Amino acid sequence: MAIENKFPGKDITIEDIKTKFPLVAKKNKNHISKFKISGVEFGSSLVPIFAGPNMVESYKLIMDCAKNVKNIGAHFLRGGAFKPLTFPYRSKKYNETRLDGLKWLKEAKKKFDIPVITEVMEEKFLDPVCDVADILQIGSRNMQNFPFLTACAKTGKPIMLKRHYGSSLRDWLGAAEYILYEGNKKVLLCERGVSVPHTHRSTSRFLLDLQVIPAAKEITHLPIISDPSHATFWNPWVSPMTLASVAAGADGIMLEVHPDPKNSAVDPLQPINYKEFKMLVKKMNKIAKAVDRKII
Amino acid sequence: MAIENKFPGKDITIEDIKTKFPLVAKKNKNHISKFKISGVEFGSSLVPIFAGPNMVESYKLIMDCAKNVKNIGAHFLRGGAFKPLTFPYRSKKYNETRLDGLKWLKEAKKKFDIPVITEVMEEKFLDPVCDVADILQIGSRNMQNFPFLTACAKTGKPIMLKRHYGSSLRDWLGAAEYILYEGNKKVLLCERGVSVPHTHRSTSRFLLDLQVIPAAKEITHLPIISDPSHATFWNPWVSPMTLASVAAGADGIMLEVHPDPKNSAVDPLQPINYKEFKMLVKKMNKIAKAVDRKII
Amino acid sequence: MAIENKFPGKDITIEDIKTKFPLVAKKNKNHISKFKISGVEFGSSLVPIFAGPNMVESYKLIMDCAKNVKNIGAHFLRGGAFKPLTFPYRSKKYNETRLDGLKWLKEAKKKFDIPVITEVMEEKFLDPVCDVADILQIGSRNMQNFPFLTACAKTGKPIMLKRHYGSSLRDWLGAAEYILYEGNKKVLLCERGVSVPHTHRSTSRFLLDLQVIPAAKEITHLPIISDPSHATFWNPWVSPMTLASVAAGADGIMLEVHPDPKNSAVDPLQPINYKEFKMLVKKMNKIAKAVDRKII
Amino acid sequence: MAIENKFPGKDITIEDIKTKFPLVAKKNKNHISKFKISGVEFGSSLVPIFAGPNMVESYKLIMDCAKNVKNIGAHFLRGGAFKPLTFPYRSKKYNETRLDGLKWLKEAKKKFDIPVITEVMEEKFLDPVCDVADILQIGSRNMQNFPFLTACAKTGKPIMLKRHYGSSLRDWLGAAEYILYEGNKKVLLCERGVSVPHTHRSTSRFLLDLQVIPAAKEITHLPIISDPSHATFWNPWVSPMTLASVAAGADGIMLEVHPDPKNSAVDPLQPINYKEFKMLVKKMNKIAKAVDRKII
Repeated sequence: MAIENKFPGKDITIEDIKTKFPLVAKKNKNHISKFKISGVEFGSSLVPIFAGPNMVESYKLIMDCAKNVKNIGAHFLRGGAFKPLTFPYRSKKYNETRLDGLKWLKEAKKKFDIPVITEVMEEKFLDPVCDVADILQIGSRNMQNFPFLTACAKTGKPIMLKRHYGSSLRDWLGAAEYILYEGNKKVLLCERGVSVPHTHRSTSRFLLDLQVIPAAKEITHLPIISDPSHATFWNPWVSPMTLASVAAGADGIMLEVHPDPKNSAVDPLQPINYKEFKMLVKKMNKIAKAVDRKII
Repeated sequence: MAIENKFPGKDITIEDIKTKFPLVAKKNKNHISKFKISGVEFGSSLVPIFAGPNMVESYKLIMDCAKNVKNIGAHFLRGGAFKPLTFPYRSKKYNETRLDGLKWLKEAKKKFDIPVITEVMEEKFLDPVCDVADILQIGSRNMQNFPFLTACAKTGKPIMLKRHYGSSLRDWLGAAEYILYEGNKKVLLCERGVSVPHTHRSTSRFLLDLQVIPAAKEITHLPIISDPSHATFWNPWVSPMTLASVAAGADGIMLEVHPDPKNSAVDPLQPINYKEFKMLVKKMNKIAKAVDRKII
Repeated sequence: MAIENKFPGKDITIEDIKTKFPLVAKKNKNHISKFKISGVEFGSSLVPIFAGPNMVESYKLIMDCAKNVKNIGAHFLRGGAFKPLTFPYRSKKYNETRLDGLKWLKEAKKKFDIPVITEVMEEKFLDPVCDVADILQIGSRNMQNFPFLTACAKTGKPIMLKRHYGSSLRDWLGAAEYILYEGNKKVLLCERGVSVPHTHRSTSRFLLDLQVIPAAKEITHLPIISDPSHATFWNPWVSPMTLASVAAGADGIMLEVHPDPKNSAVDPLQPINYKEFKMLVKKMNKIAKAVDRKII
Repeated sequence: MAIENKFPGKDITIEDIKTKFPLVAKKNKNHISKFKISGVEFGSSLVPIFAGPNMVESYKLIMDCAKNVKNIGAHFLRGGAFKPLTFPYRSKKYNETRLDGLKWLKEAKKKFDIPVITEVMEEKFLDPVCDVADILQIGSRNMQNFPFLTACAKTGKPIMLKRHYGSSLRDWLGAAEYILYEGNKKVLLCERGVSVPHTHRSTSRFLLDLQVIPAAKEITHLPIISDPSHATFWNPWVSPMTLASVAAGADGIMLEVHPDPKNSAVDPLQPINYKEFKMLVKKMNKIAKAVDRKII
């Protein structure tokens, strides 16, 4: 019958903040990390947009996307040359372009003068990924791959750490602490949907956790990015959840944008097309102004 | 090894919409229920606000709240004369005022000319509650109390059906179908937070599910209200989650407003005071405009 | 940044036990409620079995089930004359038999000398249900229908309180406290599956929470019943989860048994037939002996 | 309004089994993988026990544990020389012994003639870990670290793949498929608790998912191990959940056993001591016999 209250549960207590993640924790109420990545401000009034295809499917695709998302207002081009897949089998269509993809990303970056965020999955590919990436994206499934976090941190590159879909805020901040512990201060946290009992549709998998935005911002000085595309897995929900993210205080938005969503190599239900992206940026801008921030 | 795909899972399938909740389901993409309750429009561009204390603690409190929330911009006065409590014990402070509370609500309604939404918990109190309420609130714990839903529906009063914190959208729409089935068409759905694996703080209990707003609106013509106070259980998260609700497309907002939150009879961490409410209404108005809606 | 640790979270703390459910809580480590219902012992070494169809579909069915489950070893006949359905529509097959069903149950009870457990859903049917039931079953969806709990408690009939599929142990014990508060001491708690992020099959809905058995028994003196049929929703998982329940310390087992599962009026994937029930009782007996308990 | 039913949800469908994890899937109803690891049979009637401390704290500790758990009946000695910790900070007590720990494990293995299972966290330590380990343990947080899974698989060593606490059975089997895909056939799946909305105590974190045992065994031929210590995080729940695991059909049990649990370097609430382990093995043996299996 003796229940111990002093041992840690699932969610954050006062003690955690001081002892478990001192570098990630705010030093005072107004403490917010402000830094620039490739000229783009984070932690200021700007809410940068990361847009592009899920995967760098081809040279043609990434060049077309880079041109269009840049013109419409994206601050970063996103696109995966590496991508973790739940099963080991690859179809011709559903495949990673790896080093080729990185090369194409580099050309797109140069030609359209847009910085790049892309996922790195293995220490052995850190060099080629760092060669093109302005921000290293660490995926949900690697959130607690601690030796890998440390290796990425040591490159000195800015890092976006995606929250694992089954992780608490406590676990997520603990993982971010590993990166800051190496002296790397340019860390972005990214919410991308969590596993919950009900996702509304038999085809859905995650719920975008917007409550984590005020919850995280109350404790940590790090910027919080929201990724509604991946979380909702469904094109029509992307726009409302993007606007809600900005209203909730997100410090950046990651979006899957594809010229022809139905023919996207992966997850064809979730990307928005250029026209939808353009309309969304307009609305985001209005919402951002309403909360004293800006998109452009 | 034979797994049947034809039997229902937890979340909604195409078949459900046609066969399980035909009255709740949209007839076409643009089908949205529009109706007035005590002169206030629902389903139009207006996003009505329900504000007031958690409980009708005293005559003085409810009169003060009614005056202030009306002045600041609330469309409805909220406040519980009846309230389900998890445990049977009541302190002097933490108690229901029941028939007295209803009487006070009626006076506040009359004096400050503001319609009232209040919870009904038992069929035997339907008459006195209907005497004052412009909207009957059915609480989370009664969401699937089907005989009670039917009894409430038969009064003809508009009904706000709160989602159970453990229920799927499928279960929620099924419950709403029971109300429409009785010919009662003025039904509001209210999201008030769900139980999930992680709520960020050891003191939190629910997560406001904003993804359910676009998910529900894609399927049903009924308006969706959001209740950030109860969901977040924490004053500093109420404002961002309210703004996010409006941006996500909520058709109304329910807020706990108390002149002295720390001394609220119940849940003192979650109410906002008049000043905070005033500031929030201003911000809500900006967000509403950004999505082509309005608060006032 | 001030996070309050003194306010309640989702799960049980030491303080809860003393202040929120003193009647439900154990007075000391060895405190276990022992009582008889219609001659069957609860809280002793016996692990009583409640078996029968999901619904009292017909006179013929319930007579056949009563005879067979009694012969095979069931201590109670289960079967619903009333049943909450998620949607208001009834097919000819999928319907409640209500007062007829109660009459048939009564005949079965008399003819085969087996006590009955059956669900009551509304206060207005308490009299006819009490006339036949040896135990009143309160369903998951009514777990926190507090006025109804009180009304049931006041009848003096033994009560089995099913846990809501979205409820914490804390909420469940709070609801049980309402019943004990009325002086009714014959209360059984019943675990019937909870909503979790993953249920393994696209057709599954709940997960049988066996960890709640030792967790509850550490705090409360009330017996815990396990209902693997409803939780698993899948015939092949019923047997292993039943045996696991007994091994985990369940004080009773509720099983859906139907002569022809495929043609069960509701939930045809989950009942076991007489032959399967007979085999299962044999295995349960072995497991019970291994943990110093018994089935027969 | 068009909801696509053909895209994958969170849980398993019929199509998944054929196309996503053909190597992991059963070829027919009776297909069960049978193999020996260091002389111990898996997939037969034996239910092997892995016992030992959470961490290889010291030479003295691991020698003492090896001797005792072997004598009491354990088939494998468990103990971590490497251990992922949520936060980067280490106390003197709470630390990894790494290469020293591996050396001590090797001595214990040799002296007491007991095979060893131990966690590997990084590719660069595969060689020294393989030098002592009879089974490589891949931890929850690395479950979907696909390049690492592949590297481990290629060593040819038997692998135990722990389920991530936020992962579906679908994701888990997908990860196992990566290992089998490399031609490594000695794969054990290990359930160690999942994140759910309610864990009963404010200090608990996970729920042992026993329903996944019959669910997995219906689909895959791989053995399923259960780890009640880590899941329950609470000594008094370990015994009932262990017995329930065996009754549910677990093909092996992993237990934390420590001579002095209160002074365990990590997670001191969960280990059982030698005496408790001895009593538990006795009970496990009875339960195993009741389901036609055996411990010794």
